Amino acid sequence: MARVVTNTERTPIELCDGLGALGVATVHEAQGRTGLLGSHLRPIYAGAKIGGNALTCEVAPGDNWTIHVALEQARPGDILVVTPTSPCEDGYFGDLLAESAKALGIRGLVIDAGVRDVAVLRAINFPVWSKAIFAQGTVKETLGDCQVPIVCAGARICPGDVVVADDDGVCVVPRASAAAVLETARRREAAEQEKRLLYAAGKLSLDINNMRERLRQKGLVYE
Amino acid sequence: MARVVTNTERTPIELCDGLGALGVATVHEAQGRTGLLGSHLRPIYAGAKIGGNALTCEVAPGDNWTIHVALEQARPGDILVVTPTSPCEDGYFGDLLAESAKALGIRGLVIDAGVRDVAVLRAINFPVWSKAIFAQGTVKETLGDCQVPIVCAGARICPGDVVVADDDGVCVVPRASAAAVLETARRREAAEQEKRLLYAAGKLSLDINNMRERLRQKGLVYE
Amino acid sequence: MARVVTNTERTPIELCDGLGALGVATVHEAQGRTGLLGSHLRPIYAGAKIGGNALTCEVAPGDNWTIHVALEQARPGDILVVTPTSPCEDGYFGDLLAESAKALGIRGLVIDAGVRDVAVLRAINFPVWSKAIFAQGTVKETLGDCQVPIVCAGARICPGDVVVADDDGVCVVPRASAAAVLETARRREAAEQEKRLLYAAGKLSLDINNMRERLRQKGLVYE
Amino acid sequence: MARVVTNTERTPIELCDGLGALGVATVHEAQGRTGLLGSHLRPIYAGAKIGGNALTCEVAPGDNWTIHVALEQARPGDILVVTPTSPCEDGYFGDLLAESAKALGIRGLVIDAGVRDVAVLRAINFPVWSKAIFAQGTVKETLGDCQVPIVCAGARICPGDVVVADDDGVCVVPRASAAAVLETARRREAAEQEKRLLYAAGKLSLDINNMRERLRQKGLVYE
Amino acid sequence: MARVVTNTERTPIELCDGLGALGVATVHEAQGRTGLLGSHLRPIYAGAKIGGNALTCEVAPGDNWTIHVALEQARPGDILVVTPTSPCEDGYFGDLLAESAKALGIRGLVIDAGVRDVAVLRAINFPVWSKAIFAQGTVKETLGDCQVPIVCAGARICPGDVVVADDDGVCVVPRASAAAVLETARRREAAEQEKRLLYAAGKLSLDINNMRERLRQKGLVYE
Amino acid sequence: MARVVTNTERTPIELCDGLGALGVATVHEAQGRTGLLGSHLRPIYAGAKIGGNALTCEVAPGDNWTIHVALEQARPGDILVVTPTSPCEDGYFGDLLAESAKALGIRGLVIDAGVRDVAVLRAINFPVWSKAIFAQGTVKETLGDCQVPIVCAGARICPGDVVVADDDGVCVVPRASAAAVLETARRREAAEQEKRLLYAAGKLSLDINNMRERLRQKGLVYE
Repeated sequence: MARVVTNTERTPIELCDGLGALGVATVHEAQGRTGLLGSHLRPIYAGAKIGGNALTCEVAPGDNWTIHVALEQARPGDILVVTPTSPCEDGYFGDLLAESAKALGIRGLVIDAGVRDVAVLRAINFPVWSKAIFAQGTVKETLGDCQVPIVCAGARICPGDVVVADDDGVCVVPRASAAAVLETARRREAAEQEKRLLYAAGKLSLDINNMRERLRQKGLVYE
Repeated sequence: MARVVTNTERTPIELCDGLGALGVATVHEAQGRTGLLGSHLRPIYAGAKIGGNALTCEVAPGDNWTIHVALEQARPGDILVVTPTSPCEDGYFGDLLAESAKALGIRGLVIDAGVRDVAVLRAINFPVWSKAIFAQGTVKETLGDCQVPIVCAGARICPGDVVVADDDGVCVVPRASAAAVLETARRREAAEQEKRLLYAAGKLSLDINNMRERLRQKGLVYE
Repeated sequence: MARVVTNTERTPIELCDGLGALGVATVHEAQGRTGLLGSHLRPIYAGAKIGGNALTCEVAPGDNWTIHVALEQARPGDILVVTPTSPCEDGYFGDLLAESAKALGIRGLVIDAGVRDVAVLRAINFPVWSKAIFAQGTVKETLGDCQVPIVCAGARICPGDVVVADDDGVCVVPRASAAAVLETARRREAAEQEKRLLYAAGKLSLDINNMRERLRQKGLVYE
Repeated sequence: MARVVTNTERTPIELCDGLGALGVATVHEAQGRTGLLGSHLRPIYAGAKIGGNALTCEVAPGDNWTIHVALEQARPGDILVVTPTSPCEDGYFGDLLAESAKALGIRGLVIDAGVRDVAVLRAINFPVWSKAIFAQGTVKETLGDCQVPIVCAGARICPGDVVVADDDGVCVVPRASAAAVLETARRREAAEQEKRLLYAAGKLSLDINNMRERLRQKGLVYE
Repeated sequence: MARVVTNTERTPIELCDGLGALGVATVHEAQGRTGLLGSHLRPIYAGAKIGGNALTCEVAPGDNWTIHVALEQARPGDILVVTPTSPCEDGYFGDLLAESAKALGIRGLVIDAGVRDVAVLRAINFPVWSKAIFAQGTVKETLGDCQVPIVCAGARICPGDVVVADDDGVCVVPRASAAAVLETARRREAAEQEKRLLYAAGKLSLDINNMRERLRQKGLVYE
Repeated sequence: MARVVTNTERTPIELCDGLGALGVATVHEAQGRTGLLGSHLRPIYAGAKIGGNALTCEVAPGDNWTIHVALEQARPGDILVVTPTSPCEDGYFGDLLAESAKALGIRGLVIDAGVRDVAVLRAINFPVWSKAIFAQGTVKETLGDCQVPIVCAGARICPGDVVVADDDGVCVVPRASAAAVLETARRREAAEQEKRLLYAAGKLSLDINNMRERLRQKGLVYE
């Protein structure tokens, strides 16, 4: 009774690129501090920074069969997002699946479970954000759904939502608000750039942000 | 009443080298998905990949005395495997012991506890897989056994079993089956190499592995 | 009712430099195996090694306002030490605060909570030891105290105590004993240097440290 | 910019009662093994078993103000469901709020954070499923949303969905499928009752469920 | 070089009794939300509620010798507080030590490690708040200090400080402020009692606490 | 290729009864502080205390099929011991399997994974020691081995070894040493009984155990 929804809508790739370039912290702020996935998802190597369309996939514990099914639905610019139906650290994904995903234009993997062959994944530059690194193999007995709304690491993700991932973690932006969030994020980034120069020049945040009066009202005492 | 078993059997070093070169995920698969140590054991730096004979050592919590005893039993090609008798994160092993182990031909350390001086260990290229990095010192008051069968991070390990460790974690191969596992692993590796080329060319796993009919039987529906 | 203690005493910067150069494991040993912060504090990138005066700061959960207040109290050579009043993994500190801290001469951050923008922090070489990396933003509603004694990751830290941090973790040395600890640590380091040469030459710890008689008394048996 | 959605739809109370009586495991099975909240949510005392309409509430870390706002929206038969916007173990809820909730007809609390005064809560028979028991107080500075869709302990919950909670944990049933799930669950329960008698009489599962032929096909060997 | 400080000051027993009767949440609030020990300390059985003078004790990992030393320093009304010098879950304390402690007038144990024989401890009504329940035995090789200031589960505790423990966890009140905190706590308790009646009568917190205007200012919107 | 070893040897039931009556802490001590399973295994209700023959069973993650197979091998006095091949918290065992196990004379379950229906299990008095309580259902697709040596929660257990479980956790005694351990444990228990009376009379451990001279040698100082 598992199902695969085909031809789901995507977010335009320029929006994905734009959000990916800004990074997780900025995007998360720009959409009102929502959309973060749990902090237990960590990159398997430092320095990757991507944005792309969520290709969603729900898997049984210890069973990666549905990932094979999901890959057929991939389009260039997708990010594969995998969540198990109950907690699991097995190595669902390794070098062969990474080769396949890369060949199909997938930009990376976000998985609330384990991966393996991480030395190869780093060598071929296929970034992964996972809960664990664990060589434990998986079976192909039970199917899950592909391209349906899922909850991954505590966040709701729909097919075609924008996933942004970098060294800070992972964030999701609903497809409907991607354009607006990108605009807000760019304004925020520009404003921060101005402040950055002031900070680098040694100016204090208390002055830049006019905090002194409010601190006094809150009862802050200097001894 | 602690004891040290001397002159235990080793697995021939060529088998260790062969298994080490194939890595944890492949070896683990080749022996029927057994032998993995818990995923909480992580390398202190990325990129190391070794195979060697287990030199086993059981230690009291917060007491590294038995490691000093164990080093005398080392032979070139050994991997030191240390397990505490109850959970502990102390730094049992640091730069001096690493110098000594390296000089004695030990290829690395697997420890279900903590290590320290990791910057030095990285600099001298002595790889460690540990549960924690923690500077907490240990004492020398209580002795444990050396070169006896132990359970380390949930896996049973006998002296002279082959330990394989890389960025994916740690796996143990019983001495008696090392040759057979190596042969199976090499065949598996060769088969994977063929598939890798197909994947890299964009061919789908569903086709390479003839999965479509079985998916239909399982009731997979495309919408 | 929050308070900021101004003009607190510092430890002379040469002592900070000396202790920082020796590193966490050596300093921790030299002061009788005390002063370590919990092993869950990990560096956001490998290779940093610092010593400095503790600039202490207690924050409400999910609220980084007090950090802004604390920065005004900074002097060159300080290390900012932040502890939340209840467990929290939010990203209290990011690239702007890091720019500011760096401009003010702060050498790094120790925080029993989360940080974000870690790719930037690594790029500008501002080291952090934290409990988590998490982009979750914080608010500015509730104030905590600055430059008062705090408990951070299980260790008591007073303003002007020396904080030492490297790849092994974080250690604190009380201001009153900094000079004595530095002297002890240097003697220890020199003694270790001698032993290191013996180990590297393949000599056994059992002989270097004259352990054989005591092992026999403890009942160690060789089979 | 926080918002409260008023007069949201509820599931008829008979459905809540029916699902609550069947319990978490049965309801979870009846809806295709979906809807479970994370296993880290545990009851503060054993023996409670409830079903009710979700009254949803998102709170800032360490800030319980929104719970006060949410209580005004309560109707008899509701279960309060609270999720923090970032991980937090503070004691958001204690004896006073429990008195209020009970007086307003709320059947219990599900919270992915901490509670306190648990001895009183047990004494007045107000059940709670929480992530932690912790006395740490919270502030009233930042508002979150009430009666909007939330993700709590990894599950998506909308206002008026049915929450079922017992010693096994917590499960959510979407409002739209509550009637169907109840019917399926009752049939399942009846079928299990028949099997229970056979098991109690010593009959084997292998025979009751006709598993022997399939075991043989899978290659099971008896030695 | 371990030391025992004898004849340390105690807090008058009436203050301990008064604070113990009020419980952890109330006392914690009365002293400005400080003094809580980590939420990982849990009672081994429900229903105990005590206050007493801290009898402090630092132990080596896996070594309970110092507890034996500490018991000689006990006076009726003391609560034994034990912290290991590095993380440990061993069973430091069991039925024999509990018999001894009870005979010496000790009211309970707070330990950031493990205990065992918990069925007996429950039977003889000796309450314990611990990090773990674990039968792993300990040795008597290494000594720690008794009746010196310690950090236990993240809180600083001095000999003669008041420890309060109940089903919500553990809180410490410095000896110097015990009388003042007790008075504040009693006033708070009385004020809460009045509110409790209003809540039980169905009155809303928003009205009891005059929150509506402030909610409007914060921008709360009802839809 | 899964296998079931039939007609394995058992330990005489009187030895199981004797060890079960003494409990985990005493038995663990009597066999030289070995044999404990990890402290994360906790009883689902307090007060159970059993000993029995290990009926071992290895299961795939999220798959309880092998438990059905294992039950056929049960004999009165057995304790079912289940370990997953990789970490899993699913609810492998519930009320129906408990009815069956009870009818077959099984005394309880030890499982390094999850269970469900715990209210029923408590009601019918079928004790379980588990890693989690979680309603997540399992499938029947993949087989594991029965009645072979396994590693469960870090301890090696062979079929017919004696498993002892109580509120302190779980301990295993190898079949070959059960008689000797029982005798040692009984002597220990008798010796403790004498000491218990001395402690209850207020005598100090330092005197009962003649520790004062050794404390002085270790350098203990009273101030």
